[in-house]
This record gives sequence, structure tokens and C-alpha cells, in this order.
Amino acid sequence: MDGIEAYPSILSPPSLAVVIEQRGSPDEVARVIELPPVEIKENEVCVKMLASPIQPSDINMAQGVYPIEIPFPAVGGREGVGEVYAFGSAVKGLSLGDWVIPLPPSLGTWQTYVVKKESAWHKINKNVPMDLAAVVSVNPLTALLLLDDFAKLNSGDTIVQNGSTSNVGQCIIQLAKLRGVRSINIIRDRAGSDDAKERLEKLGADKVYTESQLQVKDIKSLLGPLPEPALGFNCVSGNSATLVLNLLRQGGTMVTYGGMSKKHVTVSTSAFVFKDLTLRGFWLKKMMIPERIQDTKVLVDYLLSLMQEGKLKYKSDLVPFDKFPTALDKALGKLGSHPKQILKF
Amino acid sequence: MDGIEAYPSILSPPSLAVVIEQRGSPDEVARVIELPPVEIKENEVCVKMLASPIQPSDINMAQGVYPIEIPFPAVGGREGVGEVYAFGSAVKGLSLGDWVIPLPPSLGTWQTYVVKKESAWHKINKNVPMDLAAVVSVNPLTALLLLDDFAKLNSGDTIVQNGSTSNVGQCIIQLAKLRGVRSINIIRDRAGSDDAKERLEKLGADKVYTESQLQVKDIKSLLGPLPEPALGFNCVSGNSATLVLNLLRQGGTMVTYGGMSKKHVTVSTSAFVFKDLTLRGFWLKKMMIPERIQDTKVLVDYLLSLMQEGKLKYKSDLVPFDKFPTALDKALGKLGSHPKQILKF
Repeated sequence: MDGIEAYPSILSPPSLAVVIEQRGSPDEVARVIELPPVEIKENEVCVKMLASPIQPSDINMAQGVYPIEIPFPAVGGREGVGEVYAFGSAVKGLSLGDWVIPLPPSLGTWQTYVVKKESAWHKINKNVPMDLAAVVSVNPLTALLLLDDFAKLNSGDTIVQNGSTSNVGQCIIQLAKLRGVRSINIIRDRAGSDDAKERLEKLGADKVYTESQLQVKDIKSLLGPLPEPALGFNCVSGNSATLVLNLLRQGGTMVTYGGMSKKHVTVSTSAFVFKDLTLRGFWLKKMMIPERIQDTKVLVDYLLSLMQEGKLKYKSDLVPFDKFPTALDKALGKLGSHPKQILKF
Repeated sequence: MDGIEAYPSILSPPSLAVVIEQRGSPDEVARVIELPPVEIKENEVCVKMLASPIQPSDINMAQGVYPIEIPFPAVGGREGVGEVYAFGSAVKGLSLGDWVIPLPPSLGTWQTYVVKKESAWHKINKNVPMDLAAVVSVNPLTALLLLDDFAKLNSGDTIVQNGSTSNVGQCIIQLAKLRGVRSINIIRDRAGSDDAKERLEKLGADKVYTESQLQVKDIKSLLGPLPEPALGFNCVSGNSATLVLNLLRQGGTMVTYGGMSKKHVTVSTSAFVFKDLTLRGFWLKKMMIPERIQDTKVLVDYLLSLMQEGKLKYKSDLVPFDKFPTALDKALGKLGSHPKQILKF
């Protein structure tokens, strides 16, 4: 067209990527391949990835057992942090070298260069450690919303949770502590449970019990001077959820956000009728809809500020990208128990 | 004291009463005896009982398996209707012959003459049939509160319930119909289920299914053009509660108010996390606290007006008081299935 000059098209570098080729166990269907350069359109940003975690939901999506479907073949990973490497002519809010995270989390972070629309990226403070920035938008955000969205907690109140050694569980302990809220934490009976107890107490846990320690007649006597919890969190289900319910006070609420035992939640009729318990569920996806994403970004920035100040820790292993197969095996639980595996590009 | 003349003390007539002598099965621990006259104090009212039902909670209280304890020995029954027979000098709001119901329900209605404080009685319209007035404050009130207190239902919305042939269930069908709310009703598989279906449809049920009819892969296909229900009611628990949960829409709520199967409620983790279901409980006692009793009385009057207009039916047998042992056996389920047994004095 007269008078309008087309911008020269710009291309991303070739990208080394973990591609999930089809539905299946990720250790069988994931392949590391080099993808050719792609065009960066005018409203798109090419990000050089710095770090990206392997989350259980990534594994479940590859397996096809998660309510978000992958259009196979697809590059895996939905969370992480990267550095702005190049962008199209219509991009106004980012500069080269800025740190960004995909928010809402979106597919394709397990690769060296990712091209997405500017609106898919959220600029963050570069002073946050990379391993923390890479994981802020799922586990810590879940913990924050669990604490804030289901009951009004005041300083001095108590919460109870199971699966307390999980990453969300550890974030709950720390975020509760910051609010003056006391936490009662249930962990599995297994070798090393004493170490786990000590680790959680260092993070700020007020009480830590193994499931078997809670198999007592008067479970409430264990609370001592702590007020009975009005809010409980369940990511295990089965008997472990029953323990949470038993510890809740009259009129309390249990929020289920996971089911690691793969068992159901079982509740007596009287717990509903006479104890007036409420059972609810939480899925982070609800916070990622367009209507709520601005609020979500504010919460993520708050969490990043806590991380920067050293007030919110998150245990992980930063693993070089070329060790992806081993990191995946660890994430799959094939090599025993390991901290969150985060790929470092 | 000078200048103040004491009112002569007035006495109630002797009262023929069902006395629960101790904790136990009511057919073993209940005895019909004549109680001597009692003094009617200045703020007390003596009511000649007309009718009083035998409710499951009466039986459970005698058995000691209900969270309200009876101070044995005690006259049984907590609901009913009677006629004002005499009152003390400080009673201002009642006249001889007025019809009253105990509200909140309170112990001692299974007898011919009951003396309670004026504040324990709620005056009602005498044009309501006696058998309906006798039962208004428990089952119909439960149905009304279940419909009103847990979700905003609009005309055209759908609810789902199990135990639909129960008295509360039948009230829910009728009250829903009056609001233009459609009801999906689950009943047990048993001889006579076709008759039950027809009876419920006559009351206004939109759909009636036996539990086995709902054991289909695509349970939602049974809804046809009905919107998926946002609200469900459970008074059975066990598998029957699961059927209610399966029929609920995304984000729906199930309220448990009974557990006739004596089984637990079992819920999958994904029903909480991905389907975002909320499970709550209801106990009428919450509405009977001093802070809420005025609101409760307004609701009871509304229900009585529906009963008077023939818009709210309640199936029962009015049984002469001297047939109490048989009525009790029927209420205990020892003689097959019978409508609610209401003692007529």
C-alpha cells in the first residue's frame, strides 16, 4: 500500500524444546528437539527462557488426565521465567532484558526461546531469585488464595492442613505465619518424618503431626491452647482428609485442592448436619480468567516481593536443561522423593 | 405484703402423658401415665393438646443418639398444636381457645395438658387443619429453608433431591413448584416405586427416578431440556448422595440434612477441584435460637397460610391417643411403611 512500509519480519532463534508428541507417560512421549525459528509478529514477544519447573499438572496433561487438553504435539511446561529477547513493532510495555513470566500460565515453557503475544507475559522484578520467580504463579499463588478466599482469618486464628510437606503446604505455613495465623500440619508416616517435622517447624509450623499421631480418641486435646481451626486444606483426600475434618471447629470449612492419595473424601452425615461443616474445592484456573487476571497479577507481585525479601522460601533443584530426562524421572517419583525440579536453560 | 393481694394459684387438669422413663428404644422405655395437676404460674399457659406427631428426632432423643439430650424421665414429643385452656395473670397475648404451637419446638407435647411459659407458644390461625398445624414447624420449615438459604433460585431453575418420598421431600416438591422451580426427585428402588412416582408427580415433581434408573453413563442426558440443577438436597447419604452430586451442575451445592441410609457421603477429589462443588449441612436448630426466632415465626405463618389455602399438603395418619403403642410401632418402622403418625388427643 502506498505510503506504508512493511516492517521487516523478525525471527526467533531456533529453540531447543521438550516436545510432547502424543498422549502418554511423559518419559515415553517427550522428546528434546530443535525447533526452527518462527516469525515474531508485531504484537509478539520472544523470550529467552531462564527457568521452568516440571509440575504435576504438566505430567497429568501429557497423560491426558487433566481437564486442560494439550493439542499434541506440543512443547511442554506452563510456568517459568525468562528474559525479553526480541519483540514486534507494536509491543510497548516491555524492553529487551526485562524479566517476564507467562501469566496466566500457558503451554510451551520447556524450551530455550518462546514466542507469545505481549499480553501473555507479565513483567516482574529482576531482583527475585530465578528459581523462585519460575514457580511463583502456581504453588505460592494457590497457597495465598486458599488462605484468603474461603474464610476471614485474623491473627491468632488457626488453620489445619494435610500434605504439609508439599510445595503448596510449605507456602501455606509461611504465609500463615506472616499473618499471625497458626498452622496445624499433618504429614505422612514414613521414614524421615522427624526431619520433615523439623523442616516445617523451621518454616513456621506451629504443630506437625503424622497421620498415625492423630489416630487418638480426643483429637482436639492435641490442640492445647490453640483455638480450634475454622479452615482446613486438603490435598491428599482419603483418611488424611478425615483427620482435617475431625480437627475443624463447629461450622468450619475444608477446601480440597488436590488428592494425592487418589482416594475419595468421606464425610459422615452428622459432620454436615450437627457439626455444620462446609466442604469446598479450589482450582487455580478460576483466577486466570480475563475478568480476574489483573487481580491475580497483583497477588503474584505481592508473592514476588515476599520472595525477594526472603520471607517466602520454596525448595527446588535447578537442573541444567540437558539433564531433562533425569529431572523428569525425579518429577515422576521414579527416583524417590526430590524437591521440585526446575529446568535451567 | 400490704396492699398487694396474691392471685389465687390455679392448677392445670391432670394430664395423660407419654413419659420416656430412661434412655432406650421408645417402645421399651415409654409409658402412658396420668400426671397430677401442676401450678400454672403467672406467666404460664396451660394448653389442651389437640395433636402431636411422632418424629424421628423424638425417637432418636429417647435412644440418646441425638445431639439434644432429654432429662429423663420426661414427657416425649416436641411438636404439635393445642388450644389455650388456662393461663396466669401476667399472660397478655393469648385468649382462651386460641390455637398455639410450641415454637421453638420443645419437649413435652405427648400429653393432654401442657403448661409452658407464654413465650414458648406461638399463636396460629385456627383455620388451618389440625393435622397440618401439628407438623408445620419441623418438616415444612426445613423444606422452606433448604430452598431459600443456600442458593438464589429463580423461576425455571432446577433442584435435585433424594429421599423424595420423605415428608421434607414432599414439601420441597410443593414449595419448589410454587416458586416455578423444577424438581428432579430420586426415590428408592422398591415395591411400589411406580405408585410413589405417580404420587410425587401429582404433588408437582417434574422428574422422578429410582436410584437404579440413574445408574447410567451419561446421567445428564436424563435432564432433557431442564437446566442442570445448581442446588441439591441429601437426606439419605451413601450412593444416593453421589447421584445428587452427579446431577449437580458445575459450581453447584449439595445440602445434607439427614442420612437415612446410615452411610457416609463420599466425594471424589475432582468433584471439589474441577467441578467446584460445595457441600454443606442443615440443622433446623440453628433457626430456633433467640436471635432468629422472630424470623422463624414469620416463615411458619407463611407455611400455615399455604396449608390453609391447600397449597401445601402433608400426608399423615391422625391416630387416637389411646392407640399410642401402635402409632409408635408404625413410627419405628416395625409395621412396614406408614405416613407420619400424629397423635390426636
